[in-house]
Amino acid sequence: MATFIDVHSGFVGVTAEQLKEAHEADLAIEADEGVHFERAWLDPESGKVFCLAHGPSKEAIMRVHERAGHPTAEVYEVPIEV
Amino acid sequence: MATFIDVHSGFVGVTAEQLKEAHEADLAIEADEGVHFERAWLDPESGKVFCLAHGPSKEAIMRVHERAGHPTAEVYEVPIEV
Repeated sequence: MATFIDVHSGFVGVTAEQLKEAHEADLAIEADEGVHFERAWLDPESGKVFCLAHGPSKEAIMRVHERAGHPTAEVYEVPIEV
Repeated sequence: MATFIDVHSGFVGVTAEQLKEAHEADLAIEADEGVHFERAWLDPESGKVFCLAHGPSKEAIMRVHERAGHPTAEVYEVPIEV
């Protein structure tokens, strides 16, 4: 199981409730890909969202986000952390 | 106290030990700015580092990173999280 950070753009003005809904859409289907989305952080001013996830591959992360309605190609595997 | 994620580029091939040293350089001076760097994740392939921090302002985060020798202008305030 690897760790990933992915980045979404375009979430300008999104609310806490809307972020929660988007995150729950991931959680609802993530098991299909053996993925778990642990946390997500939103800057509603720039519209950036950063998700911390665990899973088998970058592609698995991307498939969950795509099926949940918020695709991103910007997914980084982060094997080193402090 | 606000929450921030900042992004560094150019850390291609950096090791766990080097990331730890960079993080410790932040920790050694962060109190001067009322900042705390909680975690950092590195993708040594793309060279991206993501730091999760708490502090009074984006500028305070930037000043610590700059003094520690790894400046970045890419700092996001993330007031919303799940």
